[in-house]
Amino acid sequence: MRIAMIGLGRMGANIARRLMLGKHEVIAFDRNEKAVTDLAGEGAIPAKSLEDIAGKFEGAPRIFWVMLPAGEPTESTIEAIIKLSSPGDIIIDGGNSFYKDDIRRAKLCSIQGLHYVDVGTSGGIWGLERGYCMMIGGEDETVKLLDPIFDTLAPGYGTIVRTEGRHSDDDRAERGYIHAGPAGAGHFVKMVHNGIEYGLMQAYAEGFDILKGKSSEKLPEDERFDINLAEVSEVWRRGSVISSWLLDLTAIGLAKDPELGHFTGKVADSGEGQWTIDAAMEEAVPVYVLSAALFARYRSRVDTTFGDKLLSAMRFGFGGHVEMPQ
Amino acid sequence: MRIAMIGLGRMGANIARRLMLGKHEVIAFDRNEKAVTDLAGEGAIPAKSLEDIAGKFEGAPRIFWVMLPAGEPTESTIEAIIKLSSPGDIIIDGGNSFYKDDIRRAKLCSIQGLHYVDVGTSGGIWGLERGYCMMIGGEDETVKLLDPIFDTLAPGYGTIVRTEGRHSDDDRAERGYIHAGPAGAGHFVKMVHNGIEYGLMQAYAEGFDILKGKSSEKLPEDERFDINLAEVSEVWRRGSVISSWLLDLTAIGLAKDPELGHFTGKVADSGEGQWTIDAAMEEAVPVYVLSAALFARYRSRVDTTFGDKLLSAMRFGFGGHVEMPQ
Amino acid sequence: MRIAMIGLGRMGANIARRLMLGKHEVIAFDRNEKAVTDLAGEGAIPAKSLEDIAGKFEGAPRIFWVMLPAGEPTESTIEAIIKLSSPGDIIIDGGNSFYKDDIRRAKLCSIQGLHYVDVGTSGGIWGLERGYCMMIGGEDETVKLLDPIFDTLAPGYGTIVRTEGRHSDDDRAERGYIHAGPAGAGHFVKMVHNGIEYGLMQAYAEGFDILKGKSSEKLPEDERFDINLAEVSEVWRRGSVISSWLLDLTAIGLAKDPELGHFTGKVADSGEGQWTIDAAMEEAVPVYVLSAALFARYRSRVDTTFGDKLLSAMRFGFGGHVEMPQ
Amino acid sequence: MRIAMIGLGRMGANIARRLMLGKHEVIAFDRNEKAVTDLAGEGAIPAKSLEDIAGKFEGAPRIFWVMLPAGEPTESTIEAIIKLSSPGDIIIDGGNSFYKDDIRRAKLCSIQGLHYVDVGTSGGIWGLERGYCMMIGGEDETVKLLDPIFDTLAPGYGTIVRTEGRHSDDDRAERGYIHAGPAGAGHFVKMVHNGIEYGLMQAYAEGFDILKGKSSEKLPEDERFDINLAEVSEVWRRGSVISSWLLDLTAIGLAKDPELGHFTGKVADSGEGQWTIDAAMEEAVPVYVLSAALFARYRSRVDTTFGDKLLSAMRFGFGGHVEMPQ
Repeated sequence: MRIAMIGLGRMGANIARRLMLGKHEVIAFDRNEKAVTDLAGEGAIPAKSLEDIAGKFEGAPRIFWVMLPAGEPTESTIEAIIKLSSPGDIIIDGGNSFYKDDIRRAKLCSIQGLHYVDVGTSGGIWGLERGYCMMIGGEDETVKLLDPIFDTLAPGYGTIVRTEGRHSDDDRAERGYIHAGPAGAGHFVKMVHNGIEYGLMQAYAEGFDILKGKSSEKLPEDERFDINLAEVSEVWRRGSVISSWLLDLTAIGLAKDPELGHFTGKVADSGEGQWTIDAAMEEAVPVYVLSAALFARYRSRVDTTFGDKLLSAMRFGFGGHVEMPQ
Repeated sequence: MRIAMIGLGRMGANIARRLMLGKHEVIAFDRNEKAVTDLAGEGAIPAKSLEDIAGKFEGAPRIFWVMLPAGEPTESTIEAIIKLSSPGDIIIDGGNSFYKDDIRRAKLCSIQGLHYVDVGTSGGIWGLERGYCMMIGGEDETVKLLDPIFDTLAPGYGTIVRTEGRHSDDDRAERGYIHAGPAGAGHFVKMVHNGIEYGLMQAYAEGFDILKGKSSEKLPEDERFDINLAEVSEVWRRGSVISSWLLDLTAIGLAKDPELGHFTGKVADSGEGQWTIDAAMEEAVPVYVLSAALFARYRSRVDTTFGDKLLSAMRFGFGGHVEMPQ
Repeated sequence: MRIAMIGLGRMGANIARRLMLGKHEVIAFDRNEKAVTDLAGEGAIPAKSLEDIAGKFEGAPRIFWVMLPAGEPTESTIEAIIKLSSPGDIIIDGGNSFYKDDIRRAKLCSIQGLHYVDVGTSGGIWGLERGYCMMIGGEDETVKLLDPIFDTLAPGYGTIVRTEGRHSDDDRAERGYIHAGPAGAGHFVKMVHNGIEYGLMQAYAEGFDILKGKSSEKLPEDERFDINLAEVSEVWRRGSVISSWLLDLTAIGLAKDPELGHFTGKVADSGEGQWTIDAAMEEAVPVYVLSAALFARYRSRVDTTFGDKLLSAMRFGFGGHVEMPQ
Repeated sequence: MRIAMIGLGRMGANIARRLMLGKHEVIAFDRNEKAVTDLAGEGAIPAKSLEDIAGKFEGAPRIFWVMLPAGEPTESTIEAIIKLSSPGDIIIDGGNSFYKDDIRRAKLCSIQGLHYVDVGTSGGIWGLERGYCMMIGGEDETVKLLDPIFDTLAPGYGTIVRTEGRHSDDDRAERGYIHAGPAGAGHFVKMVHNGIEYGLMQAYAEGFDILKGKSSEKLPEDERFDINLAEVSEVWRRGSVISSWLLDLTAIGLAKDPELGHFTGKVADSGEGQWTIDAAMEEAVPVYVLSAALFARYRSRVDTTFGDKLLSAMRFGFGGHVEMPQ
């Protein structure tokens, strides 16, 4: 199929490449002209503007895949695309948008006779090679029409063992993508995916912290162990209950440098962790672990908090306690 | 009554003083001779050693109040007292011992015909003036015998409003002390008190953190407030649902310096917070808040954790993410 | 001053009463006619509709105090008042509105030449007697103009000890109310107050759970205590570090029934706990305790969660574990 | 090698079978005679008692693998084996013992000239087929001597992709076992493994809870999704960041019954989750996620908590709030 890729950052460019490998024709656009030229060198059809893209389709419907940062960049680009689209055209938001924005934009598109599809993708920088895991929201018919695109981008069956007891007429999940529901459902499922991701990561982080701390001189001498964390991460990949892809990455990180000396430990969060907690609160679902994982990232980014000082002030108040030596 | 006070640190000396104000006779001992001399100057009977104390009682039973740091200092001192005691003598551990140590020591004392009493005290440096809130473990008869001591140390009725609906033949709680149960029960109740204390403190700390952060430039301009924290802490003392003594102390701290600039925010914890979590786990009681309050203190004392670095390593692994600028 | 009270539920009626006790004139309105008649019997000026209220003021500005549930009831009522107001009139939202709604409504009022004030009140059903702790948002001049109202409603100095080290030209906080900032700031501070309240309550709840569980037969026999919770709550009111008004209420509850047998333990939350977490996330403030306290309420209201079943399914999957007997 | 397997429960019997498949000779013993007879039918050498085992070795050292529940059963059995052993013999604790018990027992063995090895195994009921992931504590020489045993039990290289950047002279981790350190280190690493396992499981549980709750009628109609959880779990296995073995098991469970109707959601915990928190507290490592995961299991097993009732009692106290309808 012919499809326009708008936004040629790391994710957008790789998605375009995987599409071209799958014999799709990609119209490439980015505000950064070099990104366009580079991809044109690999076979893409270069475009100079959103308007220019519109003219490079040969028939209807035109398919616009927007791959930009969530928020203003995506919002304003989609607004512009809506203006230059014709009824029947399809707009795909493949970024990390907030699912309520999808719901709103899908309504707007619907009024204009356009079709809106949201695609949450997981797989990061490995997707070009491994394929992208995709969670898709939109109308049945539109999602079906785009099937060749998703089929190309997804990992496919690969060597992953089939799930025992599984029986479904729809094998898309096994090939690496699902139609999760109407507009917004794709990004909603992806959002929860990221919330879980934070929780998983923090569980490993805390566990390795305990292993690391076991050599501490604060402990009785005969209860100290000097544990080789790289070896532990490696062995846990092999037949243990906690083997996972995140553990594979942990093993890679620790193999390169068991002290992780290149990292400062100031950990960013994208909006999705926060949105996941919001969604949980709207449903009154207790999410102790997912929230704690998010908060650990907040805490990692500051040296101290005002709250910590307040604790010290109270302790001084009732006990005359002076703070710990630094 | 005549009673020996062993350990004349801030707490021990003040307890001795309040006892003397209540017309009790205090035999004072500390390894620091100056502490003994000072208290003798205020009317105490000085003692040069544990053995010396034993000879300064005029009749039986002799009453030893041990007011030393929990762990080895308390343990070895009580062992020494046991050796020089006679059947019927009473040993009081007024420190912050682990309640299982009390249970063990009480058994040991019982075999020797001695009586063991554990007293958890709350009130900190304010106790001399306000009186000490005491939670007591031990045999009925022994605790009754010591009643004049506890009555003197406790705050008494004071001006605190009587609890509506209360009906009890025993007014000790209203005067500020309870006989919580057999040996260990006093320190157990005090331990839980401290666990709760951590939770309360952290709740205030987090709340004030949110108020403080509301002036952040990261927020939309019309959603920023520059809130006077000292005024907030003051007004909450007046008719609000969250008024408390810890809030009173917060107000004092913020009145002196709204920025709490003298504090680094590295917050110590005594063993009792940890023991409270242990007790909860033994009973399979979920203690999300009490544990989180303890962990916040751990976190306050380090600049970063290995776990945080591991998060960064994983994020680099799957997304090529580089850490936040510092 | 003459002021209209719109909404005569438990809170609104009592605020009206306290105002009348303070010699203010209250125009009373509620959709429930009986509530109006009742309050008229106590001296209020009855009104039959919002329009009717407008005519019962003798001069300008008219002052409308809206005391209705947050959300639609407050929103639609304020919209209606805006329509029948004249420039200079003052609209007070005394309910539990979301502070961003205040910011929005204040802008709307400003365009019409009206003044919007938000008042967060704490004190619950005790306010009539104890006075209301108030956190106020709005323009300086308007808040000043309303001072006689706030002065009457607030607790006043009372017998509360003055905060050591306090020096402020403004004694309003000491009388029980503060001008926290522009519109929205009042409800924002009140919102955080409620967030803290949840945290404090959960800290006590967990602590008493541990005390209660200490009699469990799962524990070794010599480590079990049968602790009198009513006595513990009473003694902690007396000189302990964790004395508070919430503890006073706990003592009342336990004095009436140490088993709390009238309660099922299904605990509601108003929106404010959730909004507090939202605010914290917007500021990237870690709020482990405040969030855990909210989640404990969510969890209290369901018998089981799908997540719990999923844990069991996983355990069955890797270990063949069958669930615990019920 | 010839090795005695003491304890032929699900784990012990399968370990014995995998050893026999690897051409080792297994002396089999269990208090349940049928278990012994069954395994003898598969080629094991049956033993009637611990004493009987001792006589069935042909040379030194004798190797005893104890595979019993942690605590008393393991303790008393190892005591009995020590009594009938000769210097040089090896005792392996392959169960889930607390690592401090290992340290203690290893000292005891050392005094008698015996060698103690602790083996933490992960892999559950899948181990017979997939191989066991093993974390081993003990003396270098003893662990080396047992290498043929561990090599047989471990998964081996299999098809798992090699860790990029890994360089180690020791390939044992890649074959599925590590020598983690001196006695106790094996069970310590396994304990942390289980702590992490709880955290990972709870992260998935909370995430799926949010997906499940998204169809709730409490939500605005256009924000509800009816998400197929089985399809989501399947697609996340394919190229997503959160793919893992636990997710594979989740997919199996949901494929069989998307409602998980066979499960009540009362989730047990073995001691290891609790020990992990203890270890973290000894090191002052904040473990918000691992502890919350443990507490969620505690909470899953009770209908309500006394603490929840106390919250209701306080709410009634300050606000006259009546509990939610059930």
